[in-house]
Amino acid sequence: MSRVYNFSAGPAVLPEEVLQEAADEMLDYRGCGMSVMEMSHRSKVFDDIIKDAEKDLRELMNIPDNYKVLFLQGGASQQFAAVPMNLMKNKKAGYIVTGQWAKKAYQEAQMYGEAIELASSADQTFSYIPDCSDLDIPDDLDYVYICENNTIYGTKYKKLPNTKGKTLVADVSSCFLSEPVDVTKYGVIYGGVQKNIGPAGVVIVIAREDLITDDVLPGTPTMLKWKTQADKDSLYNTPPCYGIYICGKVFEWLKKMGGLEEMQRRNIEKAKILYDFLDESKLFKGTVRKEDRSLMNVPFVTGDKDMDAKFVKEATEAGFVNLKGHRTVGGMRASIYNAMPKEGVEKLVAFMKKFEKENA
Amino acid sequence: MSRVYNFSAGPAVLPEEVLQEAADEMLDYRGCGMSVMEMSHRSKVFDDIIKDAEKDLRELMNIPDNYKVLFLQGGASQQFAAVPMNLMKNKKAGYIVTGQWAKKAYQEAQMYGEAIELASSADQTFSYIPDCSDLDIPDDLDYVYICENNTIYGTKYKKLPNTKGKTLVADVSSCFLSEPVDVTKYGVIYGGVQKNIGPAGVVIVIAREDLITDDVLPGTPTMLKWKTQADKDSLYNTPPCYGIYICGKVFEWLKKMGGLEEMQRRNIEKAKILYDFLDESKLFKGTVRKEDRSLMNVPFVTGDKDMDAKFVKEATEAGFVNLKGHRTVGGMRASIYNAMPKEGVEKLVAFMKKFEKENA
Repeated sequence: MSRVYNFSAGPAVLPEEVLQEAADEMLDYRGCGMSVMEMSHRSKVFDDIIKDAEKDLRELMNIPDNYKVLFLQGGASQQFAAVPMNLMKNKKAGYIVTGQWAKKAYQEAQMYGEAIELASSADQTFSYIPDCSDLDIPDDLDYVYICENNTIYGTKYKKLPNTKGKTLVADVSSCFLSEPVDVTKYGVIYGGVQKNIGPAGVVIVIAREDLITDDVLPGTPTMLKWKTQADKDSLYNTPPCYGIYICGKVFEWLKKMGGLEEMQRRNIEKAKILYDFLDESKLFKGTVRKEDRSLMNVPFVTGDKDMDAKFVKEATEAGFVNLKGHRTVGGMRASIYNAMPKEGVEKLVAFMKKFEKENA
Repeated sequence: MSRVYNFSAGPAVLPEEVLQEAADEMLDYRGCGMSVMEMSHRSKVFDDIIKDAEKDLRELMNIPDNYKVLFLQGGASQQFAAVPMNLMKNKKAGYIVTGQWAKKAYQEAQMYGEAIELASSADQTFSYIPDCSDLDIPDDLDYVYICENNTIYGTKYKKLPNTKGKTLVADVSSCFLSEPVDVTKYGVIYGGVQKNIGPAGVVIVIAREDLITDDVLPGTPTMLKWKTQADKDSLYNTPPCYGIYICGKVFEWLKKMGGLEEMQRRNIEKAKILYDFLDESKLFKGTVRKEDRSLMNVPFVTGDKDMDAKFVKEATEAGFVNLKGHRTVGGMRASIYNAMPKEGVEKLVAFMKKFEKENA
């Protein structure tokens, strides 16, 4: 077995010890005689798995008691509809469009009411986060929506928007658990787990209790109404059990590593290695305004498509995989989530230096 | 490691060799240097996994080219809304209510149009399948809906309803791939995979192409519109990759075992062992009308709640687990899906005989 350095934007690298434990427990989970894939979601043993996962997540993020944690399906894309269906009481919401996923959420909301673009960075290929300190926010807005870390473009809000008292809803898929969060600043935090937490097929919604009601838009499917699952502790129907089990293992791993403060320290350290090199390199350069750079997704280019392609090819051969950038940005992107070791980033930079010298 | 005989109604037993392969490939899938959980859903290696899974499923079920196969999320419960949202052009559909899941689907459809109960077996705790040879079917009905195998009650349609030319939609969650199917008799076949195919978190929808359109009910979330995923071969957004990978392994296993004809032969043989015993036992008896008995889910009772509880307790201690019946039926239920070996059923019956003798 030889593991590569996997810079995929998602699904993405997971901690090796989590995978090893999962492999060891595959046929017999802790003496119960079956795989986690085979156990009833109503069994005591699975109940412990999901309850422990929630408990550990609450501890990691310091989630207050008046917030519910839901383990759902359908990805962030499904929440693009669920958010307006659950929250658009006045049928009016504000969206800050900082990339493709924010834009998709914004477009989906237009089906359900008036969705207003409060700000956008489309004018410069989403390479920055707009100034959100004094937005024009109508009084009857149901919520303000952001995508907090933009996976494709490599930007992140360093300061949350001033919502002027309106509920903040954030898709945190690609920065989930990458640093400490003040949950009380949000009404709803949600994200697909397949970037920084676990396997694709689980989306976690953390919502303040007063926002979880039966007063949803007419026609909201039972499964998209947050209250359905909130009332049943995510067991209204069969949940994605195995994915939740892996998420739980990652939560345990994060606690063992020192929690989110320590992950933040490591992530800053890892990102600095890469960004510092990009700032000094004559061949490679970052594509994002410096103050808005993501700790998780680092896009960069050489400015020459053929050179980009050559780099991706040679990097892949050297065991640095999934470095090709998104087609809308081009070039390269290194996603360096929690589970990417510092060593992986150091070796990538060493490889980039070598490549630069060879191609000077 | 000691594996139990797991009679869970779902999530349920999987073939041991599938689990062993998954364990072996956990950290490095066939030399690619990463787990299937970690790979991009846009990668060549995952594309092969999902394409091969679809190909094998098409072969197993002999699915005609004019039917699409979709790998979705949200369970059957989410399809309870998706079915009317995609199909209710005339806002009128007929439901045959043969149990809790059919009833939930029927209730969900009432949000979107006129849902008519065409027949029901509620009068006898859903212990039989109503006569569906000459139903009163209005001309403007969009479809006729059934739950083909009723997991909780242990009944199965042995003959499909006469829909008088209307589109038949079937939830086959608990009989999926248990026997050959003539797909052309259905407009839509769908089911959660967590009973007979794979881990919870994947639902497979097999729909005739002319039923997959942009003409859906207003307000249908993008993710619930079948066309969204049909146009993108189930890769509109990140699919539940790991679950699909396990399903693919089960499809391969089924092919190796001899396909659905052979599974049917085995399933009939296994069920006969249990039903024959129930018919001769003085302590245990089946709860379902004989001609409607499911091959997959076998509910039975002693008629004495304390005796039932004693049986479940002693069976569990002997390694026959998850035999407790659903609360609405009481007693016991043995789910004997494809992956339950004949030996498991034989041993269960031997245990029941011993228990009967000891408690005569």
